[in-house]
Amino acid sequence: MLIQPVKGMRDFYPENWVFQKWLSEKWLKLGAQFGYEEYEGPILEPIELYLEKSSQEIITQQTFTVIDRNKKKLIMRPEMTPTFARLIAQKENELTYPSRWQSWGRFFRYEKPQRGRGRSFYQWNIDLIGSNNILADVEILTLACLSLKCLGITPQEACIKISDRNTLNILLKEKLKVSPSAHKAVFRAIDRIDKIPLDILKDELKKAGLSPNQIDDLLGILNENDPCLFPKIGQLFSYLEQEEIAAYCELDYKIIRGFDYYTGTVFEAWAKTSLKRALFGGGRYDNLTRQIGGKRDLPCIGFAVGDMTIYELLNELNKLPRLETNRVVALVTVFSIETSKASINLANKLRQENIPVELFPEYDKKLEKQLKYANKKRIPYVIIIGPDEIKNNAYILKDLQEYKQEALAYSALVIKLGNFSPDCQITPD
Amino acid sequence: MLIQPVKGMRDFYPENWVFQKWLSEKWLKLGAQFGYEEYEGPILEPIELYLEKSSQEIITQQTFTVIDRNKKKLIMRPEMTPTFARLIAQKENELTYPSRWQSWGRFFRYEKPQRGRGRSFYQWNIDLIGSNNILADVEILTLACLSLKCLGITPQEACIKISDRNTLNILLKEKLKVSPSAHKAVFRAIDRIDKIPLDILKDELKKAGLSPNQIDDLLGILNENDPCLFPKIGQLFSYLEQEEIAAYCELDYKIIRGFDYYTGTVFEAWAKTSLKRALFGGGRYDNLTRQIGGKRDLPCIGFAVGDMTIYELLNELNKLPRLETNRVVALVTVFSIETSKASINLANKLRQENIPVELFPEYDKKLEKQLKYANKKRIPYVIIIGPDEIKNNAYILKDLQEYKQEALAYSALVIKLGNFSPDCQITPD
Repeated sequence: MLIQPVKGMRDFYPENWVFQKWLSEKWLKLGAQFGYEEYEGPILEPIELYLEKSSQEIITQQTFTVIDRNKKKLIMRPEMTPTFARLIAQKENELTYPSRWQSWGRFFRYEKPQRGRGRSFYQWNIDLIGSNNILADVEILTLACLSLKCLGITPQEACIKISDRNTLNILLKEKLKVSPSAHKAVFRAIDRIDKIPLDILKDELKKAGLSPNQIDDLLGILNENDPCLFPKIGQLFSYLEQEEIAAYCELDYKIIRGFDYYTGTVFEAWAKTSLKRALFGGGRYDNLTRQIGGKRDLPCIGFAVGDMTIYELLNELNKLPRLETNRVVALVTVFSIETSKASINLANKLRQENIPVELFPEYDKKLEKQLKYANKKRIPYVIIIGPDEIKNNAYILKDLQEYKQEALAYSALVIKLGNFSPDCQITPD
Repeated sequence: MLIQPVKGMRDFYPENWVFQKWLSEKWLKLGAQFGYEEYEGPILEPIELYLEKSSQEIITQQTFTVIDRNKKKLIMRPEMTPTFARLIAQKENELTYPSRWQSWGRFFRYEKPQRGRGRSFYQWNIDLIGSNNILADVEILTLACLSLKCLGITPQEACIKISDRNTLNILLKEKLKVSPSAHKAVFRAIDRIDKIPLDILKDELKKAGLSPNQIDDLLGILNENDPCLFPKIGQLFSYLEQEEIAAYCELDYKIIRGFDYYTGTVFEAWAKTSLKRALFGGGRYDNLTRQIGGKRDLPCIGFAVGDMTIYELLNELNKLPRLETNRVVALVTVFSIETSKASINLANKLRQENIPVELFPEYDKKLEKQLKYANKKRIPYVIIIGPDEIKNNAYILKDLQEYKQEALAYSALVIKLGNFSPDCQITPD
């Protein structure tokens, strides 16, 4: 019996991995265009890093827990932000602010595996540290829009819904006269607004301490869509009126996000297709580095976007890129044991010229079989080098796409293969 | 109190991560030159995947164990090969052979953290599947040599010590008349030959069932260095007499490797510096896919090389590359709240021209402070855009290295910055 992989974990064969690589390179390149520097953190973190800061649901129900050989309780990271905050807090007096950081890494949540959701996934995390200026919010929202655009996802296919927790705090406190101690419970109820029926929502708001009038007033405002109701949101939206991104941005006062650490601007990307779900989210969190033990005020804003929902969306839109797993230009065949060293030498020389080639690694297989292999692997050229070719210092180059062949000296071979850029095999973006 | 990271785990700040990225790109590019395709596997695997196949020491003493919410015992992968074999076995009837695979991933071992060894490390794994021809062994050994060479490590600084388990099996069985059931114990003793005193080694060989004469004969052969003692090793070394790699290759009959799955050629890279330790190792394992439940004979050969010892070696040799974490060409400054949208627009336009730039994300900081920031971050240029510049359609470009500035129209700015390739900031390899 074949040993089976763990449920919810993912095997990436070359034809799967090439998508992961394409996706991560797209996003990391986008971040680098804006000056974001790459970092990484541990997969294992102490559980204290998440308690009371991250999402309650994730910590109590979805962690993979490791008891190490000293009986210490560790968890496999379910998200990056607490690790990121720890890294920043550790060097809070040495870093140059504003700082821009991004990373691509693996995360683990014990969820029910389903379409677009696994127990192990990748995320791109991108954060701007040390500025509470609205320009920082604008930059992060711009990146959220461009993270869709750079994959070919249009504003007709997905949008960024934007709100502001701070504005909602002020509204609750000053206009609706809701006690600040109840805000957390109110936020948690609003965060589930799309997932639960209206009467259950009202019930949760009542439990949080709101009167029927307060509930009606709150729900009335949550359904508004005029950014100018609140000056801060009005100003933010005036900055978002830029050619590339305006069409992606929508106001939605119901957006709250499930993580307790958010303090200001919050946003979620939503698919407008039949997928109809949040693709990713982010926001401003100005107190997290202090919460985990830092001493400075370090306002932050950022977001994280995972690989799996984006894959589902691109698949649904028929916009998955066609990618080649192998970029070699030619297969160098092996005629016999006697000529095998000449084949090895030729392959090595071509690689030194920066021409990627495979060598057929068996000297006792018929040429026909080697050609069949090249065809099956979609390798564009085959080089034949037998006793005659060695004697004449000319190699036979077979073009497997055009069904033709020619005898070429080494220098001509290099020119011909060097002009065939292996990148041509990848669908251009 | 700041929450502390888990012992032996590693935080990668941008200045650390840039090395990891450089290293992984060097090796993956080398593999791609030979036609190796990238794959990945899960971090969590069932413990059965390793039992009786991997290294005893690792499995009993060094695993991080996870009990999942269904009480199943999982381990965080300490090496790639069993996962790799599982992936191959799962699709053994669909894959095209020979197959060439490589990956870059994270691994976990509960070892005593020390210089060049952590509890979490990265490895490049590279394997050739489906050929037991000697040309496959030659290719993998070539890659082992080039994995050092491509980092600038010379044959004077490190070497590849090579032997063959199969040859040793035949020697034990046919010449020394040692019972096959004792071979595993003999191999385990030989594997520790450099770590234990001679009398303890002899004692272990005695416990394995060898007589004093057998022990003397065995030790005599292990200290030989003539490849022609055995035809198979002689043939292998004749193939390794190639310009780029011959100087790295050494015969060493004492090389065994600690993993039980090896069956043929085995090798270890060793530093010749004061580091004096194995840098990495690999070999042929022809039965592993069957051992984990596969049905076909799939001979494999490959190796894995980690990031930490290589870092230590490069550091000792003073050959660590100098790498920049940030590749932006210019900082776009912000003069005031009124002109901030013009700064944002300019930055976005330049990025669309493929010129990476940072925007200073605050409109209320003095220009002097923004220049200081650019200096500290070693950003080559600063663009100043205030009310006059907007009126005149000309931007001031300050060269922070040459201490000069000029006023440029947008098109001239694009040409100037576009010619300054951000790659210039990276030390060429």
